[in-house]
Amino acid sequence: MTPAPGDETPPVVALSPNEPGTSMTGARSLIRTLVHAKVDVCFANPGTSEMHFVAALDAVPEMRAVLALFEGVVTGAADGYGRMTGRPAATLLHLGPGLGNGIANLHNARRARTPIVNIVGEHAIYHQRFDAPLQSDIVALASNVSKWIRVCASSDDLAADATDAVAAAMGPPGGIATLVVPADVSWGTVAGRAARRRPVPPIGSVPADTIESMRKVVASGEPVVILLGGRALRERGLRAATTIAGATGATLFAETFPARLERGGDLPPIERLAYLGEMAIGQLTSARHIILVDAAAPVSFFAYPGQPSELWPTGCELHALAGPGHDVTGALEALAASVRPSWSSARGGTSVRPAPSFARPTGPLTSESLAAAIACVLPEGAVVVDESNTAGVFLSGATEGAPRHDWLCNTGGAIGQGLPVATGAAIGAPDRPVICIQADGSAMYTLQALWTQAREGLDVTTVILSNRAYAILNLELARVGAGAGGPLARRLLELSSPDLDFVALAQGMGVPAARATTAEELVVHLERALHEPGPHLVEAVLPIGFG
Amino acid sequence: MTPAPGDETPPVVALSPNEPGTSMTGARSLIRTLVHAKVDVCFANPGTSEMHFVAALDAVPEMRAVLALFEGVVTGAADGYGRMTGRPAATLLHLGPGLGNGIANLHNARRARTPIVNIVGEHAIYHQRFDAPLQSDIVALASNVSKWIRVCASSDDLAADATDAVAAAMGPPGGIATLVVPADVSWGTVAGRAARRRPVPPIGSVPADTIESMRKVVASGEPVVILLGGRALRERGLRAATTIAGATGATLFAETFPARLERGGDLPPIERLAYLGEMAIGQLTSARHIILVDAAAPVSFFAYPGQPSELWPTGCELHALAGPGHDVTGALEALAASVRPSWSSARGGTSVRPAPSFARPTGPLTSESLAAAIACVLPEGAVVVDESNTAGVFLSGATEGAPRHDWLCNTGGAIGQGLPVATGAAIGAPDRPVICIQADGSAMYTLQALWTQAREGLDVTTVILSNRAYAILNLELARVGAGAGGPLARRLLELSSPDLDFVALAQGMGVPAARATTAEELVVHLERALHEPGPHLVEAVLPIGFG
Repeated sequence: MTPAPGDETPPVVALSPNEPGTSMTGARSLIRTLVHAKVDVCFANPGTSEMHFVAALDAVPEMRAVLALFEGVVTGAADGYGRMTGRPAATLLHLGPGLGNGIANLHNARRARTPIVNIVGEHAIYHQRFDAPLQSDIVALASNVSKWIRVCASSDDLAADATDAVAAAMGPPGGIATLVVPADVSWGTVAGRAARRRPVPPIGSVPADTIESMRKVVASGEPVVILLGGRALRERGLRAATTIAGATGATLFAETFPARLERGGDLPPIERLAYLGEMAIGQLTSARHIILVDAAAPVSFFAYPGQPSELWPTGCELHALAGPGHDVTGALEALAASVRPSWSSARGGTSVRPAPSFARPTGPLTSESLAAAIACVLPEGAVVVDESNTAGVFLSGATEGAPRHDWLCNTGGAIGQGLPVATGAAIGAPDRPVICIQADGSAMYTLQALWTQAREGLDVTTVILSNRAYAILNLELARVGAGAGGPLARRLLELSSPDLDFVALAQGMGVPAARATTAEELVVHLERALHEPGPHLVEAVLPIGFG
Repeated sequence: MTPAPGDETPPVVALSPNEPGTSMTGARSLIRTLVHAKVDVCFANPGTSEMHFVAALDAVPEMRAVLALFEGVVTGAADGYGRMTGRPAATLLHLGPGLGNGIANLHNARRARTPIVNIVGEHAIYHQRFDAPLQSDIVALASNVSKWIRVCASSDDLAADATDAVAAAMGPPGGIATLVVPADVSWGTVAGRAARRRPVPPIGSVPADTIESMRKVVASGEPVVILLGGRALRERGLRAATTIAGATGATLFAETFPARLERGGDLPPIERLAYLGEMAIGQLTSARHIILVDAAAPVSFFAYPGQPSELWPTGCELHALAGPGHDVTGALEALAASVRPSWSSARGGTSVRPAPSFARPTGPLTSESLAAAIACVLPEGAVVVDESNTAGVFLSGATEGAPRHDWLCNTGGAIGQGLPVATGAAIGAPDRPVICIQADGSAMYTLQALWTQAREGLDVTTVILSNRAYAILNLELARVGAGAGGPLARRLLELSSPDLDFVALAQGMGVPAARATTAEELVVHLERALHEPGPHLVEAVLPIGFG
């Protein structure tokens, strides 16, 4: 069976037996079941209806519960954890409003196809008819982001429901399974019962005739683009795809915002499709065929007056080699073998570019010197969480050829994703340094993640790109044809008056912080942050509104 | 026509005509229509799909757009504004994730029956089929909180849709009207058309035979409780209800968490039903009749094992004098006149209690000395926003008999409500000082409100009740029968390790701040904060976990 959807062998999902003759609360049974299924981290922001879950934690110490001060941190952290481990974390959310606060980062996780077991407390079943103040339609909210939803009906069902939730979250493809747990289901007593296994279904292999069809396309001599997304952007997929491109002349692109792109070291570099539709159209302009590999058809992120939604040229044919439910890596390797029979996955597609020099930048802080500073400190094995938006435009180029690292993007466009994903990534990959490159406006949605980083002592270095503006929106204002905007419009896109002081904000949540106003200062602060254990924040002061 | 649901005469809701022969974008038409309907404040956190709305602001300067850094601040501020003015503010939210971030405070606003025109941008209609990254099911999310939802189909419909939205929000009863506006509807051109009026429907009068039935109940000689909620807790309702109680021996209670309770000065005091079900059962234990006046039947906020959901005694009859859609004040005044014909609304129910003395407290900061400190500085006309949770237990008693003020509570139980509601209340009532009494854990959900207070120069004094714990949950852990919790459980309810430094956090968002560790210091800091214009924050350091 091929692993899905992360790196690791998927857990055996099993219903945990009670000790014969014992009984326990539903909540304890739930936690035990999750731990048996290797779901042993729970990002939590509980309330009264979740108190029995909280109380049961001491009975199952294998479950690591991580408190966040806001639900957007809970769900974003579960996303980061799942991206790094390939296994779901659990969340613990308080009723509809708690789920609501977590929706934005669940939206991003849905787009990343991250496995998450989303546990939402609900009023006791018998209490729901009274429409108490916190009553709301949890299922309606959950439907926005979940591939699987169940409202647990009894304490005795809870273990089986949790087993199903883990299996649903694992996929393939991965996704969000939401289990709604009424309070009386949590506090009710469960009788012992026998274990029941529910294996994760295997990933579907891509049929040989699809491989052969795609071989004909890449061998056609016509201009071919191979657009890689999802799991195709891990090492094996990249090596296979690079081999295909080398053998056939096809052009490779990565999707615009990958959930996890492996790069650096001797990995072959790959260019990402641009966020700006007009630039992406330019990248694809000569294509006569686009082969999608775990990627969606390239469309504009937003609509703009008079601009097309579809980014591929007229007459270009779209094909799919493999989708999210397929063995994407296997399909790419099979295609590579069909175009270059001597190819071996262990050596194929190795980058032969000379390592670039990473000189320490000097002088004023700009988007360019900021990117150079990050490139020259980037440690081997780093996990880079990128919510840099406009000010990060030079990052990708500057860090190409840096030591081996992973690059995690905002997959769904809901901002406030960077700090929480970095938090969860650090818990999922505790031996790797995490660098979160975070736009200032977006940082303010979920800044509470810093406190969880401090409490858990996580090795996360946050770089705030402080340009005191929603700079992307100044750009978008013009792109939608609304011109430069008058003073009232522009005021809505500025983060000044007053300026945000991210050093004070970080220190207020227990994270050591420093401010850099030159490239030299930024390098020094970053080196210190990466050297010392625990979280740090560096506010990089950029020109106002500078992209 | 009786005003509804706030204090002021409701706006005439009218479709605004274009100047003959001119044209404008849908977005401009929307803003014009809103302004004509007296919806002239918009709390906003826009994105690309809302850029045409932003661009149109300069053409309709009567609309005041207020930027917030997070959508929970947007929606909570609209709630506070609507509670103080009786008129809706507009929100401006970015697609499904933006609405998701605003759901929790919309939930509270729904429970408060606050009129809000909730404007949610959406992808252009023709772009939606491409499932671009930010695409999600906005209507499913909106259905959780909205009494009225419409997806606008064309630019020409936008003014009429906005008119309908304002009318729906005004009620009666008030509520949330969500208008989803696709980007191409915003940027499309609108032709001029004639005005069309859509008056707000009048509030329904309570039938005379209901008044007469209730007269018989209060005159029956049996123990009667009159439970006041919603609009019954404003001056006229309170005076009438107090007259009824004085004439008949009925006992008055206010609902547990009123949206807006007028009190202090010569207003008759009213005891609120307790949050703790066991205490509320005690308050109602001798009732044989409960008359609901714009209040829901009293039920437990949460369910607890072995505890009843219904808080009224067996055999007690529930009656309704008036519901949210009724002329609540008129019904109470009619009942007052029926039991005391000489009664006059201008003088009835005046408090004759001696004004309590408000000595300056001294010594350690405790919940009790904190309440005394707030009572002794509370200025005439203050608006108190109360999200004090456990540490605020003595506030209500301490401030009874203070100068005239309004008390705004968390109506829906979704925490993170205080700071945003205070922000909106200050914009809705600019001549009144706003005091936000804010529990520390709840503050961290929507702390970004401080930045909006600083930018807009709002006279809001925030008092953070810093006990470094979700103290309410320590209490709830025991109440749900889960005992005191082991160390892993207790760690999930503590806000320490690291402590939050609210002075640094406030200063980081441009709000002057100070820390008080004694009652004397708290009084001094509060007096200075209330004396100086603009927002201030005082962190009141209480014993750890102390309720």
